[in-house]
Amino acid sequence: MTVTAPQGFRSAGIAVGLKSTGKPDLALVVNDGPHRAAAVVFTSNRAQANPILWSRKVAQGGPARAVILNSGGANCFTGDFGYQTTRLTAEAVAAVLGGDADPEQILVCSTGLIGSGDQAFRDKIVGNVPALAAALSDDDTTAPAAILTTDSVEKTAVHEGDGWRIGAMAKGAGMLAPGLATMLVVLTTDALIDDAAADRALRRATSVSFDRLDSDGCMSTNDQVTLLVSGASGATPTDDEFTAALASVCDELAGKLQGDAEGAGHDIDIEVRGAASVADAVEVGRSVARNNLFKAAIFGNDPNWGRVLAAIGTTEAQFDPYAVDVSFNGVRLCHAGGPDRPVDECDLTPRQTHVAIDLFAGTHAATIRTNDLTHDYVHENSAYSS
Amino acid sequence: MTVTAPQGFRSAGIAVGLKSTGKPDLALVVNDGPHRAAAVVFTSNRAQANPILWSRKVAQGGPARAVILNSGGANCFTGDFGYQTTRLTAEAVAAVLGGDADPEQILVCSTGLIGSGDQAFRDKIVGNVPALAAALSDDDTTAPAAILTTDSVEKTAVHEGDGWRIGAMAKGAGMLAPGLATMLVVLTTDALIDDAAADRALRRATSVSFDRLDSDGCMSTNDQVTLLVSGASGATPTDDEFTAALASVCDELAGKLQGDAEGAGHDIDIEVRGAASVADAVEVGRSVARNNLFKAAIFGNDPNWGRVLAAIGTTEAQFDPYAVDVSFNGVRLCHAGGPDRPVDECDLTPRQTHVAIDLFAGTHAATIRTNDLTHDYVHENSAYSS
Repeated sequence: MTVTAPQGFRSAGIAVGLKSTGKPDLALVVNDGPHRAAAVVFTSNRAQANPILWSRKVAQGGPARAVILNSGGANCFTGDFGYQTTRLTAEAVAAVLGGDADPEQILVCSTGLIGSGDQAFRDKIVGNVPALAAALSDDDTTAPAAILTTDSVEKTAVHEGDGWRIGAMAKGAGMLAPGLATMLVVLTTDALIDDAAADRALRRATSVSFDRLDSDGCMSTNDQVTLLVSGASGATPTDDEFTAALASVCDELAGKLQGDAEGAGHDIDIEVRGAASVADAVEVGRSVARNNLFKAAIFGNDPNWGRVLAAIGTTEAQFDPYAVDVSFNGVRLCHAGGPDRPVDECDLTPRQTHVAIDLFAGTHAATIRTNDLTHDYVHENSAYSS
Repeated sequence: MTVTAPQGFRSAGIAVGLKSTGKPDLALVVNDGPHRAAAVVFTSNRAQANPILWSRKVAQGGPARAVILNSGGANCFTGDFGYQTTRLTAEAVAAVLGGDADPEQILVCSTGLIGSGDQAFRDKIVGNVPALAAALSDDDTTAPAAILTTDSVEKTAVHEGDGWRIGAMAKGAGMLAPGLATMLVVLTTDALIDDAAADRALRRATSVSFDRLDSDGCMSTNDQVTLLVSGASGATPTDDEFTAALASVCDELAGKLQGDAEGAGHDIDIEVRGAASVADAVEVGRSVARNNLFKAAIFGNDPNWGRVLAAIGTTEAQFDPYAVDVSFNGVRLCHAGGPDRPVDECDLTPRQTHVAIDLFAGTHAATIRTNDLTHDYVHENSAYSS
């Protein structure tokens, strides 16, 4: 159980031929209520896929009944034909749900190669919605696999509250850099919270989790993180309690996305301390995370603190370059902007890598998750569309 | 002849043991006047090497007599000891030049591994200044090799004006991303122009050349572009004439730096047209140039226009994602934000790669030079300090 761990949800995942491998590629998550609140955050990329354009309208309109997700094609830069595909998909879902279901209450997510979205793509999705609906179950385990692209493992999480739960599934292995979200994620809960509280909680949770994951500096056109609220448990956690639980689930998923990033050899947590503000800490962490020379050095197990300082120097953050400390895996290699412990005291062979930067400019902190720049990354991303 | 092509200059390059290979690693360019105007642009990285800290003071102080440059060590993050090394270097040069030479008229440039700058480094430089001065010649060919690091070829340029010349030498093969400059460059001229004109011309020339080279998104701590003016020809080109010539020399050198970038397989010129402003065109070009997925695709000879649009979408530039055209090597693959010509019509096997982006948002344009992301880049930069 993942997104169906909370009460009031059904899900399913089936194969409809979008992936050439024949693996599952179409998933549906239905909120059976009674509450049906929803909150969604989208990519901040201004080049947005058709499902994003559609789902933005749905999110503005109020309650959401379901979210349908496909892998095997992003339906991005496919013009009006692609947008109509998204609309027809939502209409097909509303039709099979029956009753009072409205197409404008159906969220749509797509992931895969940008530009794909032809007639065959449309037919495979729309024509298979009835089969997908027939597979719906409140004890489902098939949905998470159907949203994967280059991911090597399913990514799920469950939080147990006091009489309520959060369930989650996620995909994402490349283009992991945030605008708002960085991937496709569906979060479900049977806690009884209203729309405004759900929206606040989702924005706070994503800002400290998915927004701090920056694997390769590239922002997707299709990212969407959706929270569906059934309220079926009747339990009413406080705002803080629910937000903390949601943030914990999102952080767990962010760690799983980092751990499965395309071609990565190291999972690097860049902890920035002593910053004048959280924004400064995030800016410094992200600048280091996006520095190709630093990332290539980590691939080579080289704790190159000079490249860390050079990356910090490109930011607007408050700091004195000659008052900065940098540690790799607990060994302080740079103190006050100069050499400290010998570099060979530091072992970077483990996949988990911790870089601690102290700016000595304040009391704020943030950790950015990233990955190294490897031969496998170059290979996978030069061969992706072939 | 390179920096000694104009009248009034002598130069030399010798090996002093900074490079483990025994290749030349110390160069000197002397302005014998009569005019001795100078203009300098520096890296905008806030983490700055000791020679940058020193040379900034020199540049503020007025005329410059000479510039001494070493490879084999950046003298960056080496603390006060490193700064004193730079000061002692300038004093040694002033002493051998004799007469009215003042240490505060001697520019210093260093390049190589960040953090290096110990007693041996100091002794090799300061102790060899007399030998370097003894090698000075007004018909020199040895200086350009002495400033190279991972460069595979010497980079020089000469412009012939009407009775005056510009000479130039440059180094730079990695960390090629601009703040102001992106490398070490020495430009010399015997045109008779005043300090203010030299400064204006240098800033205008670098802003449209070196500032538009972004090989790997990483900004150095040591970049310095120096223009020395001897006035020895007595010729007085107009401001526009001199600026155009200087920009042409800088653009030629930028092309040579791009062509020798570490591990690169493609030289990519990203031409952005139809922009609402030059700043928009530069922002869009740079965003594409820094997108690792785009760069890896070009390595694989994949004209992945979707990644171009995704990169444009992260900018603040004026554009409508559904009105953008993108061509690769003259083949328009994306029209109005959707697919146009078949991708297999485009041949990306030549090293020279031209990506044209039309934003249809105005009349401004700019071209950003970059390189692809390759296995060799990852290899060279993961093994650099070993």
